[in-house]
Amino acid sequence: MQTLPGFRDFLPEDCGARNYAFAQWRKIARRYAFLEWDGPVLEPTELYRKKSGAEIVDQLFNFTDKGDREVSMRPELTPTLARVVAAHERAFKKPLKWFSIGQFFRYEKQQRGRLREHYQLNCDIIGESDFAADIELIALCIDILRSFGLTEQDFVVRISDREFWTDFLQQQKLPTEQWEEVLQIIDKSGREPREKTEEKLGKLASPIFSVFDKGGRSGKLDRLVDGLGARGLAGFVDVDVKIVRGLAYYTGTVFEVFDRAGKLRAIAGGGRYDNLIAQLSDGAVSMPALGFAMGDVVLGELLRERPATRDKLKAAMEEQNKIDIYIVIAKEQHRADALEQLQGLRDAGYRVDYPLTAEKVAKQFQNAENAGARIALLYGDEWPQVKVKNLGTREESLIAGEAVLDSVAKFFTVSGSV
Amino acid sequence: MQTLPGFRDFLPEDCGARNYAFAQWRKIARRYAFLEWDGPVLEPTELYRKKSGAEIVDQLFNFTDKGDREVSMRPELTPTLARVVAAHERAFKKPLKWFSIGQFFRYEKQQRGRLREHYQLNCDIIGESDFAADIELIALCIDILRSFGLTEQDFVVRISDREFWTDFLQQQKLPTEQWEEVLQIIDKSGREPREKTEEKLGKLASPIFSVFDKGGRSGKLDRLVDGLGARGLAGFVDVDVKIVRGLAYYTGTVFEVFDRAGKLRAIAGGGRYDNLIAQLSDGAVSMPALGFAMGDVVLGELLRERPATRDKLKAAMEEQNKIDIYIVIAKEQHRADALEQLQGLRDAGYRVDYPLTAEKVAKQFQNAENAGARIALLYGDEWPQVKVKNLGTREESLIAGEAVLDSVAKFFTVSGSV
Repeated sequence: MQTLPGFRDFLPEDCGARNYAFAQWRKIARRYAFLEWDGPVLEPTELYRKKSGAEIVDQLFNFTDKGDREVSMRPELTPTLARVVAAHERAFKKPLKWFSIGQFFRYEKQQRGRLREHYQLNCDIIGESDFAADIELIALCIDILRSFGLTEQDFVVRISDREFWTDFLQQQKLPTEQWEEVLQIIDKSGREPREKTEEKLGKLASPIFSVFDKGGRSGKLDRLVDGLGARGLAGFVDVDVKIVRGLAYYTGTVFEVFDRAGKLRAIAGGGRYDNLIAQLSDGAVSMPALGFAMGDVVLGELLRERPATRDKLKAAMEEQNKIDIYIVIAKEQHRADALEQLQGLRDAGYRVDYPLTAEKVAKQFQNAENAGARIALLYGDEWPQVKVKNLGTREESLIAGEAVLDSVAKFFTVSGSV
Repeated sequence: MQTLPGFRDFLPEDCGARNYAFAQWRKIARRYAFLEWDGPVLEPTELYRKKSGAEIVDQLFNFTDKGDREVSMRPELTPTLARVVAAHERAFKKPLKWFSIGQFFRYEKQQRGRLREHYQLNCDIIGESDFAADIELIALCIDILRSFGLTEQDFVVRISDREFWTDFLQQQKLPTEQWEEVLQIIDKSGREPREKTEEKLGKLASPIFSVFDKGGRSGKLDRLVDGLGARGLAGFVDVDVKIVRGLAYYTGTVFEVFDRAGKLRAIAGGGRYDNLIAQLSDGAVSMPALGFAMGDVVLGELLRERPATRDKLKAAMEEQNKIDIYIVIAKEQHRADALEQLQGLRDAGYRVDYPLTAEKVAKQFQNAENAGARIALLYGDEWPQVKVKNLGTREESLIAGEAVLDSVAKFFTVSGSV
């Protein structure tokens, strides 16, 4: 028996890495005063069809449940967000700044950085059309990556604006029904030979390549970069009008985050989707909105590439899985004395382990080291005194059994919190 | 558009309650030196059929995926645990003490305390047949509930032993193929009229009722209670031989946790399943094991019943969603000055919010209160000084703009950490 293809087991080390990502995501989102929420992992398939058209169903883990409902394991969070916001919008003061951490599923061919499930952070601002929201959202995305120890040398946020292109296509007098097709060609242009893009664009090739070559800017994009610059974050951002994102529902700012080396898939992506909530709620609620999503898989690859971020990840994993104290039972007749103190130590908040059955003392000290314990407490012939061993310095001392809790508290106060 | 029946949205308050449960589960499991792990939410259906028989499929969210695989959304964790342990057992020193927090799914009729999805904590000890493991596991279960503020008056762990009954049925010379049926009748006896149980038990009714009436103890159960007593936890435990648990794979100690008032469904349940890993791994790996699961739904109901635990829950929810500092922009010409300081405050770890667009000062102070901010920083005519308002005491003071970070640090050091 194995996992299904594209699904992962999380052994304790992997789980530590996952929890580290979750903790950083949550911590920085909270610093930005975003509130956490979540939706169901199973939703009516119609919710996704409505947003993305019937083709989306080919990429879903979808089925008919025992109550004859068409259901899907969620491939993304935005449709759920639109549903929840439309249902509860009166209960909350706008703008909403909401984030969510959860698992998402797609039936896709597996590739590097792309499994059939992944965890994703979603951050959205709902009910604010002002450009200040775009800056706040992108700043959050950058600060989250900075919190992992990533720098301007490691990643770049490529920012663009759909309006820049829709204004341009209007000037070129292209019929609106052809816009989406041209935007898709522009979106793919970075990943295709120039000749191929040229051929697809036809007579628009020359003006569009001219924009590409000049680097294409706009007053709006300049203001976006300036706003991030005021927060000291301009170095993380490049204007790149080739970014339009493949999804038809974006209406303004769009951005994607890549590793500087350009070796990996996108780390995060998002943008403004001012019409989507109205569309998904059949016009019941209309609110400007913008958001981004960041997955755990490519992020994990990037963190493992550089020694500094890899070490930080490793330290976080170890920190999560280590214990504080190991109780060594040197003489079985003192097991009861040791277990009585065990409860008090755990009640006081320490992470404590001990041998469930009789083991050689050397083996117990080995267990203590393996578990990352800072101190060992030895219960043996010294009882009613307890031998305390600092596993870092190898120093030993004898203390009265009834003073164990106080001694331990003093040790952890002096040498760092538990 | 609504959620599917039996599935929940988690608005920020609900999400706060959920995260509080997760945090307590994780904290106490770590104090017991359990390591966190997780498996996929989608698994081959065969994994569950193998453990529970073909009937289980009627209760699953199961389907055939686009690769023609029979798959199911996980209804429980134990089969995944058996798979993972069998695959990796050489990589870990025994006994393993592992826990996991995740979501599980059953296609069932909705009832109070029973939805179609719920979150569950699973704690297991693998590779230890000694009774000490049973005591450690039950102590963990009790201490987790204690950490929510629940007391001996709120819940009870009913402990029993399958071996007590299998020994008894052997004495009664009942053919082994009838044991499971009788155990199921005993398991249901607490929820049925005595006459009905009597009728079902036939000639076994008299000896079994005699055991019920005497309270039925055994040396083993006494040792279990004594072991918990040595940790000061005996008051949380009742021996109740009527508990046998409906699942055929339990081999020794079994226990269920109920509210003392007896109004709710079981809060948690588990036991020893020494043969299951061998069965699920087709004999590849054989290891004694035991574990329990605790769901979030009934636990949440219990916590909301009593003022003390409800207040603790509420405080944890508020703590999670509050911010530290609100930046009040009294004059728009000082917005840039304010936003420059915003970044420094967030980098220093504070949770900071501010108005994305111009708002009346009174409205901004209202935002600050609503968000639970401890202090407001006002940027207006006083600039380059900043007005600091303690939102608890209403005290105000003026400080130099460049001293904001230091002043804030001093405030939060004196009046409690962020």
